[in-house]
Amino acid sequence: MSIQNIEDTIIALATPPGVGAISVIRLSGPHSILASDSVFTGKVRLTEVHSHTIHYGNIIDNGEIVDDVLVSVFRAPNSYTGEDCIEISSHGSPFISQKIISQIINCSDVRPAEPGEFTKRAFLNGKMDLTQAEAVADLINSRTSISLRGFRNQLDGLLSSKVTFLRKGLIDISSFIELELDFAEEDIEFVKRAQLIRKIEEILLEIENLLSSYSFGKVIRDGINVAIVGEPNVGKSSLLNCLLKESRAIVSEIPGTTRDTIREEISIDGFLFRLYDTAGLRASDDLIEKEGIERSREAVRKSDLVLFVGDVNVGFSSMIEKDLTEFNSSVKIIKVLNKIDLGAQGEYFEAFRISAVSGLGIIEFLNGLKKLALQDSSYTEKSAVVTNVRHYDCLKRAKEHLLNANNTVTSKLSGEFLASDLRAAETALAEIIGEVTPEEILNNIFSKFCIGK
Amino acid sequence: MSIQNIEDTIIALATPPGVGAISVIRLSGPHSILASDSVFTGKVRLTEVHSHTIHYGNIIDNGEIVDDVLVSVFRAPNSYTGEDCIEISSHGSPFISQKIISQIINCSDVRPAEPGEFTKRAFLNGKMDLTQAEAVADLINSRTSISLRGFRNQLDGLLSSKVTFLRKGLIDISSFIELELDFAEEDIEFVKRAQLIRKIEEILLEIENLLSSYSFGKVIRDGINVAIVGEPNVGKSSLLNCLLKESRAIVSEIPGTTRDTIREEISIDGFLFRLYDTAGLRASDDLIEKEGIERSREAVRKSDLVLFVGDVNVGFSSMIEKDLTEFNSSVKIIKVLNKIDLGAQGEYFEAFRISAVSGLGIIEFLNGLKKLALQDSSYTEKSAVVTNVRHYDCLKRAKEHLLNANNTVTSKLSGEFLASDLRAAETALAEIIGEVTPEEILNNIFSKFCIGK
Repeated sequence: MSIQNIEDTIIALATPPGVGAISVIRLSGPHSILASDSVFTGKVRLTEVHSHTIHYGNIIDNGEIVDDVLVSVFRAPNSYTGEDCIEISSHGSPFISQKIISQIINCSDVRPAEPGEFTKRAFLNGKMDLTQAEAVADLINSRTSISLRGFRNQLDGLLSSKVTFLRKGLIDISSFIELELDFAEEDIEFVKRAQLIRKIEEILLEIENLLSSYSFGKVIRDGINVAIVGEPNVGKSSLLNCLLKESRAIVSEIPGTTRDTIREEISIDGFLFRLYDTAGLRASDDLIEKEGIERSREAVRKSDLVLFVGDVNVGFSSMIEKDLTEFNSSVKIIKVLNKIDLGAQGEYFEAFRISAVSGLGIIEFLNGLKKLALQDSSYTEKSAVVTNVRHYDCLKRAKEHLLNANNTVTSKLSGEFLASDLRAAETALAEIIGEVTPEEILNNIFSKFCIGK
Repeated sequence: MSIQNIEDTIIALATPPGVGAISVIRLSGPHSILASDSVFTGKVRLTEVHSHTIHYGNIIDNGEIVDDVLVSVFRAPNSYTGEDCIEISSHGSPFISQKIISQIINCSDVRPAEPGEFTKRAFLNGKMDLTQAEAVADLINSRTSISLRGFRNQLDGLLSSKVTFLRKGLIDISSFIELELDFAEEDIEFVKRAQLIRKIEEILLEIENLLSSYSFGKVIRDGINVAIVGEPNVGKSSLLNCLLKESRAIVSEIPGTTRDTIREEISIDGFLFRLYDTAGLRASDDLIEKEGIERSREAVRKSDLVLFVGDVNVGFSSMIEKDLTEFNSSVKIIKVLNKIDLGAQGEYFEAFRISAVSGLGIIEFLNGLKKLALQDSSYTEKSAVVTNVRHYDCLKRAKEHLLNANNTVTSKLSGEFLASDLRAAETALAEIIGEVTPEEILNNIFSKFCIGK
């Protein structure tokens, strides 16, 4: 977005579309207050009121009342975007809010907002950095307490301050190196090389930690995909029903999700588990079965872990076990012996023993499932976690450059190479928080927001 | 709702459910401000701020930030309900708003609001009368400019002030009659009987006018149902498509509407026309066809008017015409001769002549359609119109009692009968605006509102 656009005043519906008690229309930009005032009739002029005050009155079109509304006035820089902002709270009819929006656009220098444009302005005006802006969109789509907590931390600046701290460390080192280059002829070493390597390695270690947090970050963002496999009649469906009863089933709010293979979503202690019930993995000649088998294989391929269910009186199918590793060699397999209420107990020490019918052993199993799903439990409520592949890629680039820098030092190459590597690493970090982020990356980020945010 | 309940503090989501930029949670009642303050951390205590001010801060649960929010404070009586009110504007995630609502309910003396309870409180606290409260729900569901205008007028008190005026007239007459009864032994006539009859007839005339406005009121509320009938291949579907192109198609926002027989909704000059395309009306032995025929008949039965389409080279099917009057004897039939671009012009003076393909004659047809649909065009933008069957029934009762009153006077029956009739008529009017409306009628009205309104 060019500087020109920031001079525009934008308008959009800020509340979800549909019928409700109230709808809120949001304006931001230099003409917000004047444009709203031109259609509003209340006890006072909106141009004359204090920031953060609410005013009752009517929206008037051609002498007729369109709706009676509450108008909230926010003056720059004390608003979400940092610009003059208005919120018009009308009756919750899509027809009324659309009428008011059209009226303001028609009679003022106001245009419809693009997706994410309010938050983009907040970012451009320094109200938040890029990781925080990205967290806004993710926060809105959060559906479990863990993802809410994760994106909340990101919005509160946990990741930003970590990255900013590391970047500052790099800038400190760089400034010494560049000082040395300025005095190159005198051959002064402002920093001992051993000390330099230690500093770079300290930063590298922190970056490694952030990179490895991404597996947990993906859990925050996407939840854990679980495929349930096993021979027919071992109780896969009973297990699914039992899990739904014991934990809280989540109703999907995202439209258009392909649900034909997803069976159910549950939350265990705030973690999202997406359960795929599979039919079979073995090739078949039956065309209809073939389709089901392909889907089952796909579920195993994309799953983070597999619940491999066996009948306690029969044990586990070695054929299925072989197939599992064939279709997803890295998948974690959790063995579950079902039907323990029906007697015999095989010798499978590594398996959970449950009865999906009576509920016996289910609590222990759920705890185990959660533990195994979250291998690395070193993340606390206050850890900076990388949840975003863009951040992950930037960190990986920073890591490469720092490894190069280390090589440069140990190989005693020119300080210019070192300075260049350090600068590149620092730029990669700066890109995470939006300090040097290219325009097209910004546009790509905000285009995924909803309109009105 | 008992007096006890009004002492409660209530909470609900006020914006449509779903994901958006922001959600608004609304509280009303004596504990609104304190309950919100107990979960809110900002620069100031909400208990100490002025009415109609907005405060930025965090909702905190167990020391953790749930969301950063804007809280609007409204102090009694200057709020929608007339009570202390709070609006919490959070990020637009159903998960977050539900979390905040649960948190406030768990830690304070606040309970979930019942449907329409905010508006019911506004009514009980004298912020609006019953016709205005009813208009709120109707306004939210308005989808055309005419229904918006109609319910807006009702919300602005056009119907109320008319009814209040008539009621006052009745109270004036009654007080004279009751004075006469007090002095019954002295046999004084405070009002001349001729004058009395004239007064009653004046009010009766006004009530008649309101009653006859109901046919227009139904158009405001429900729009106009139009069935399109005709022989196969006369161009019924082309006509439908042509109408959709020439006017603005309305996208239905109401979930759960049975759409299997409704084909399309269009707006002509702000009036809603609901178009039903029909297959055939003649009995058939084919089971599948039978179902379609039954639906077509049903469409004709419930339609306000029928577009009877014929091919200009063939004319109209007399069989269909016979069927139409059989299935709905009171329906208005509008004849349309299609395909005038293809030459021959039959002698049907009472028919519109169009070409659904070229668009020839369509504008004239649309104007004619609107005119015929709204027989009585005497209603102006500022007419009080009865849109609600409850109001209609009350007015009909008032009319009966006034006719009785007139009979009583002309038959020179006892003044006590007259007083009783006048009182009954006045009560019927009072019921419209909610002055003497029974509890169960109130409950019935507000139970149809959405929660949060």
